[in-house]
Amino acid sequence: MESRAGLAAAPRALPYYVAFSQLLGLTVVATTGAWLGLYRGGIAWEGALQFNAHPLCMVIGLIFLQGDALLVYRVFRNEPRRTTKVLHGLLHVFAFIIALVGMVAVFDYHREQGYADLYSLHSWCGILGFVLYFVQWLVGFSLFLFPGAAFSLRSRYRPQHIFFGAAIFLLSVGTALLGLKEALLFKLGARYSTFEAEGVLANVLGLLLVGFGGTVLYILTRPDWKRPPQAEEQALSMDFKTLTEGDSPSSQ
Amino acid sequence: MESRAGLAAAPRALPYYVAFSQLLGLTVVATTGAWLGLYRGGIAWEGALQFNAHPLCMVIGLIFLQGDALLVYRVFRNEPRRTTKVLHGLLHVFAFIIALVGMVAVFDYHREQGYADLYSLHSWCGILGFVLYFVQWLVGFSLFLFPGAAFSLRSRYRPQHIFFGAAIFLLSVGTALLGLKEALLFKLGARYSTFEAEGVLANVLGLLLVGFGGTVLYILTRPDWKRPPQAEEQALSMDFKTLTEGDSPSSQ
Repeated sequence: MESRAGLAAAPRALPYYVAFSQLLGLTVVATTGAWLGLYRGGIAWEGALQFNAHPLCMVIGLIFLQGDALLVYRVFRNEPRRTTKVLHGLLHVFAFIIALVGMVAVFDYHREQGYADLYSLHSWCGILGFVLYFVQWLVGFSLFLFPGAAFSLRSRYRPQHIFFGAAIFLLSVGTALLGLKEALLFKLGARYSTFEAEGVLANVLGLLLVGFGGTVLYILTRPDWKRPPQAEEQALSMDFKTLTEGDSPSSQ
Repeated sequence: MESRAGLAAAPRALPYYVAFSQLLGLTVVATTGAWLGLYRGGIAWEGALQFNAHPLCMVIGLIFLQGDALLVYRVFRNEPRRTTKVLHGLLHVFAFIIALVGMVAVFDYHREQGYADLYSLHSWCGILGFVLYFVQWLVGFSLFLFPGAAFSLRSRYRPQHIFFGAAIFLLSVGTALLGLKEALLFKLGARYSTFEAEGVLANVLGLLLVGFGGTVLYILTRPDWKRPPQAEEQALSMDFKTLTEGDSPSSQ
């Protein structure tokens, strides 16, 4: 199926799906902001409101930006491979930094309020995902961006990198759902079952998160939307040339 | 990569990954049973214990059996395609029936206790997943098992069926995590943060669920573990022959 895809021709439906994913992703970020603003008193870096920086940063970093970093190879199908790689790596760096701010916010808040750390399933999944994300970035950078990795090693590692990238993204979506649920139950308790406005808004946010995760996964995995292998192989051999000649390819 | 896979030779590492997935899946079921037995008073079909039938049935049906149904095409690589299809469809029927019992249990319990239905994110994700699962089964049965669907329609629908199958499975894992968290917070409340034994066991169960979901997804998506296309195409043309000749293929 892949071999049928032309080198230059982008699949017709792909741009619509990408646009839909961006609409969903931005709606997720906006709904998170609306939830925190309307029902949680907004965001500050001091006092009780510092907690609210956590969900917003995690959603922007580990949901929206991480998802978009995965889509880079589908959106920029005919750009030189090195440009696409750098953009992919940079988006992940931004995502990581914003998520790190979100992590600091919650640990800071816990310390100031005297709450225990890392007791919940949300926090266990979160730490697991965050560590995997960091390791994945380091290994990806060392093998794909830093010059020196053997061509054969890159080829063998690539499918693993793609699988773990998607898996860490999905784990991030699952962790966000757990965190949202935790925040709701801590505050609403039994009132959650009375269909209070905050509960309904948060449930809608949960479905939007599921929708964004599903749409990104669909775009990523659709076989005929993969980056054309011809272009890939060509760029790979350029990378290989770079390694042997010590020069950087200016274009495909 | 797929074309390199031999018709008969199974990938060497695949059986170990499948065995590991089964070990994880059975551990998930056993841990769910242990949690319900040790901390929730066990299972009954009457009274307050009826609720406990819900998590056990959903985990057996929509996690373990649904996951195994997805793995059928990787495990039985050289069986006739029709046999594999029937097994895949049957495992999903068992999964659906067991999950239906689990759904009846929770609605029954809610009615008897006077609790509201379908207010939580867990229930919204659950209903969404359950309806999608039913629709996916119906469409899959109509196109792949019921004789009469055009060969071209089957080919066009197959990638969608595979994507939605994996997505519904992942949604089921996410929904299970949400349900587990809900059950913990309703009962433990603030005691959750004191690392009570039940909370820690439930967190471990959550990580086991994530591990099972991840392992099934890895086996499913690894390109060189896909069912050899030669065998597939051969069997497909047999199915096509069946349609035109009104006979059933006895073997490949």
